[in-house]
Amino acid sequence: MSLTIGVLKETVSGETRVALTPEIAKKFISLNANVIMERGAGELSNQIDSDYDGVEFTDRNEVLKKCDLLLTVQPISPEDSDELNQSSYVVGMVFGHLNKETVQSLLNNNHTSFAMELMPRISRAQSMDVLSSQAAASGYQAVLIAASTLDKFFPMLTTAAGTIRPAQVLVIGAGVAGLQAIATAKRLGAIVKGYDVRSATKEQIESLGAKFIDTGVSADGEGGYARELTKEE
Amino acid sequence: MSLTIGVLKETVSGETRVALTPEIAKKFISLNANVIMERGAGELSNQIDSDYDGVEFTDRNEVLKKCDLLLTVQPISPEDSDELNQSSYVVGMVFGHLNKETVQSLLNNNHTSFAMELMPRISRAQSMDVLSSQAAASGYQAVLIAASTLDKFFPMLTTAAGTIRPAQVLVIGAGVAGLQAIATAKRLGAIVKGYDVRSATKEQIESLGAKFIDTGVSADGEGGYARELTKEE
Repeated sequence: MSLTIGVLKETVSGETRVALTPEIAKKFISLNANVIMERGAGELSNQIDSDYDGVEFTDRNEVLKKCDLLLTVQPISPEDSDELNQSSYVVGMVFGHLNKETVQSLLNNNHTSFAMELMPRISRAQSMDVLSSQAAASGYQAVLIAASTLDKFFPMLTTAAGTIRPAQVLVIGAGVAGLQAIATAKRLGAIVKGYDVRSATKEQIESLGAKFIDTGVSADGEGGYARELTKEE
Repeated sequence: MSLTIGVLKETVSGETRVALTPEIAKKFISLNANVIMERGAGELSNQIDSDYDGVEFTDRNEVLKKCDLLLTVQPISPEDSDELNQSSYVVGMVFGHLNKETVQSLLNNNHTSFAMELMPRISRAQSMDVLSSQAAASGYQAVLIAASTLDKFFPMLTTAAGTIRPAQVLVIGAGVAGLQAIATAKRLGAIVKGYDVRSATKEQIESLGAKFIDTGVSADGEGGYARELTKEE
């Protein structure tokens, strides 16, 4: 018997993503899985039902009852968890420390759940990283918003009437979002400076053509993250 | 007696520009001109009155009565023209074919008016060109809006989870706005194609790293502008 993968329409306000794109659905189907989705699940991310070849669309309850594996973006609600087929697995974000009821309900219903946001930062797991891609999107979009809002140009413009100097951009924090912001602002032609408390970022910031601002504070922590700053820092 | 230059607050809805920036006001004053402006004239373009060193701020009527030369962005209204000091000159956009009442009022009051939008496209006049700079701004802003609105990235992104192909952008028309749009989209990393009926633009489009789309229609007109297309074209 083949595995049935279910996807619901996200219900959290402001959430426009869907846990499965047509491209990946096709891959699952080619691996002999059944894919079953709630009607209109992809609508907010501009994927209409007919974009999903070979996927069965039905109502929310039917998805919950039929699937062996549920894919989600936002943590599953305790109500959905209660309705979900008891032997089912859940793959999505959980944020267990914020959603105790969800965790309790997953426990009560004997669901095995994979919290995607806890995926370790190792090479093997990178293709499953649900945070970096979103951080990159925020960094990129933040700069576009800044550029649209600013009442001057980002790039230097040399015109017959004179030269307009490029905008100066300061990016605070050089994680995935910050680095993407730096790269986008550089692409647009701004003069970019970057800052981070982790000394390793100096090289990363400079490799993007931006200037690293050294405040003398170094707060390297474990696994590439920063440690908590002291009050003086 | 020194020349008095006047600037009003623009009244056309949606117009946020001001005819004089603090930088240029300073130059006029250093040439011994008096500059007199309506209070808050620069507000909508984020220039507060105190940014203008040495400029006298007063009410609209006082500006109209005192100035020898009035600078405007939008065409002067017939009412302002009637109030304006009779020996005064007006420098700004006029669009006489659209604003017959303005022209009539300028005539009646014996004002000499310079229609800035009619500045010829020659090298000597380029520093007075009021259209190119605005077209460049539109082209730039149009691409930023497109990039913010598009539900994918403009640049190619290579991540551990796979490679995202760059966006494809088509810019129709390669005048000042179009060329700026092409340049901005290229900067952001998109694959850009450009199209224009004037064959001279092929080289310009390609020099920006974009691909020229040749439809076989060539409609070169006089002075670098396109001629009107025929129905078949």
